[in-house]
Amino acid sequence: MKKETLLIALGGNALIRKGQEGTVEEQFENLKLPIRQIARLSEKYKIIITHGNGPQVGNLLLQQECCNAVPKLPLEILVAQTQGQIGYMIESTLDSEFMELGITQYFITLITYVVVDEHDPGFRNPSKPIGPVYTEEESKTVPYPTRKTAKGFRRVVVSPEPVTVIEKNEIRKLIDSDFLVICCGGGGIPVIREGRSFHGVDAVIDKDLVSAKLAEEVGVDIFIIATDVPGAILGYGTSEEKLLRSLTVDEAALYLKQGHFPPGSMGPKIEAARRFILNCGKRAVITSVDAIEDAVSGNAGTEFVRQC
Amino acid sequence: MKKETLLIALGGNALIRKGQEGTVEEQFENLKLPIRQIARLSEKYKIIITHGNGPQVGNLLLQQECCNAVPKLPLEILVAQTQGQIGYMIESTLDSEFMELGITQYFITLITYVVVDEHDPGFRNPSKPIGPVYTEEESKTVPYPTRKTAKGFRRVVVSPEPVTVIEKNEIRKLIDSDFLVICCGGGGIPVIREGRSFHGVDAVIDKDLVSAKLAEEVGVDIFIIATDVPGAILGYGTSEEKLLRSLTVDEAALYLKQGHFPPGSMGPKIEAARRFILNCGKRAVITSVDAIEDAVSGNAGTEFVRQC
Repeated sequence: MKKETLLIALGGNALIRKGQEGTVEEQFENLKLPIRQIARLSEKYKIIITHGNGPQVGNLLLQQECCNAVPKLPLEILVAQTQGQIGYMIESTLDSEFMELGITQYFITLITYVVVDEHDPGFRNPSKPIGPVYTEEESKTVPYPTRKTAKGFRRVVVSPEPVTVIEKNEIRKLIDSDFLVICCGGGGIPVIREGRSFHGVDAVIDKDLVSAKLAEEVGVDIFIIATDVPGAILGYGTSEEKLLRSLTVDEAALYLKQGHFPPGSMGPKIEAARRFILNCGKRAVITSVDAIEDAVSGNAGTEFVRQC
Repeated sequence: MKKETLLIALGGNALIRKGQEGTVEEQFENLKLPIRQIARLSEKYKIIITHGNGPQVGNLLLQQECCNAVPKLPLEILVAQTQGQIGYMIESTLDSEFMELGITQYFITLITYVVVDEHDPGFRNPSKPIGPVYTEEESKTVPYPTRKTAKGFRRVVVSPEPVTVIEKNEIRKLIDSDFLVICCGGGGIPVIREGRSFHGVDAVIDKDLVSAKLAEEVGVDIFIIATDVPGAILGYGTSEEKLLRSLTVDEAALYLKQGHFPPGSMGPKIEAARRFILNCGKRAVITSVDAIEDAVSGNAGTEFVRQC
C-alpha cells in the first residue's frame, strides 16, 4: 500500500523550552523528544519536517548588532544560516534515532526559499517583532522600524503571505523517491520575483502558513503542527480553559474572527490547519511536541475536520 | 549518451575577492562569473558544486567574540550556518542564470556532514588558523589554542582528513535523478562516530580534500578546482613563475615533497587532484574561477594525467 505523506511543523519549543538559555546542548537534548517519534513514524509514513527559527535568528541579529567589525547581513541571509544550523541539528538527531531503531532511511535538509508578493499589504505595515530589545532612546537610532512590545522596543519586520515554495517540485520528487525531507526552516527565505530572477527581502514568513502552502503544493495527506500546548484552547490562561478536540473549518474561522486565538501565537496555527483542510488535505492536527505520535493516531490534539 | 558528472569546487574568491570587505552585494556580484559558466555546463554535464567558507565562518566567529548576550555556538554549528548562507547565495544566483538561459533544472543545497577519525594525528596538532586576530596579550585569555600567524595571533583548529561523506548515497541518488547538487560547504560539518551516533567536533576539514573524497565516493568523472590563480604555478610570486599545464600524479607528489606548494593554499589542491586521479577519476583540473568552462574543454588550468 502506498504510504501516506505526513508534514510535521516543529515549533520553537522543539529546540528551546521556556526558561532555557538555549545552549546547543539544550537544543540537541530537546530535539530527541519529537525526533524519536518522527523516526518511528517514518516506518509508516513519508515525512516532511518544517521548523521555526525565532530564537536562533534573534541571536544572529543580536550578534550583528554587537559587532561592527564585519559587514551586516540582511535578514534573508540570516534565515538561510538558521536553516543550515537547525537542519544539521535535526539531521544529526534523526541519524542517532534511526541507528538506535535500526532503520535505514535517506534524509536531507534542503535550503528553501519562498516567493512573497511585493504588493502584499503586509509590506505597508511591518508588524512582526524580531531580534534585540531596545530602550525607547536606542530605538530611535536604529535604521529600521521599531515598535513597543511587552519586552521593550523591538525591530518589526513585514510578515507577508507565502505565495509559493520555490523547491516544491524538488521536494515532491524527493518524497516520491522515499527521502525524508527537512525544509522551509524559519518559514523559508523570503524572496520576491523581479523580472526573470528573485531577490531576498527583509521579511519573515510564518512557518505554519508556509507549511500549509507546502502541504498543498506537494500533496501532503496529514499535517501536524507541534507546539508547546496540547492543542487549540478556548480561554487560554484563564480558569475556564477548554481544549478543543475537534474543529470544523467554519468553527475555526468563527473563533479566529471572534479573537479567541491571538495573531502572534495560536492564530496562524489555526489558520494554517484550516487552509490545509480547505485545500483538500485529509487531516490537520495541532498538538504538543510530546504527543506527535498520539496526534497522528487520533488520540491527542485538536483535529480539523471537514464539514462534508 | 549518458552525461558525465562534473564536480566543481569553488574557492573563496568565487564569493569574496582580494581587497573586498565582503558585503552581501559583493558576494552576489562575484558569484555570477562562476555560476554563469556552471549553468551553461549543466546542459552537457551532471553537476555537483562544493565551496569554501573561510571568510564567512571567520565573520561568525568574530561576531560571537563580540557578543556575550547569546550562547556561543561550537564551530561545527557555524559551519552549518555558512552552508545555509552560501548555499542560498549560490542557488539564487543559479536560479537567475537558468532563467536567463531558459534552462529548466532541478537543483538543491544539501546540508552535509563528514566523518573524521578521532585518532587523526591532526587532533594532536591544531594548525589551521581561523577567525579573529588577537594581540599576544589577548591570545592568552581565549579558551582555545592560538598561534602566531602573519596577521597576528589567531585561534588554531585541527584540520583532520575526511573519512567519508555521510550524505554520499543521497548525493549519488540525486545526481542519478538529474539534480544539480550543492553540498560539502566549508569542507562539510565535521563529526566523529561515537557508538551508534555522531557528534560534531571543533575542526575544519579542507574543502578540496573533502571534494576529492566525495568525487571518489559518488563516482565523479571530472573534478575542477576553481581558485584565484590560473593553475599550479612553480616559483609562484617570483620572476620565474611557470604555469604547469599538466602534471602526472608522480610529478605532483614530487613537487609536494619538495615544498613547491604550501600547505595553506595550493598544496591541498594539488593533493586533492592527485588523490582523485589515483582513485580512478578521469580528469582533474586546477584552474581560475573565470576559466571553468575552458578548463572543462581542456584549454586552461593544470590538468592531472594518469601515467598509464
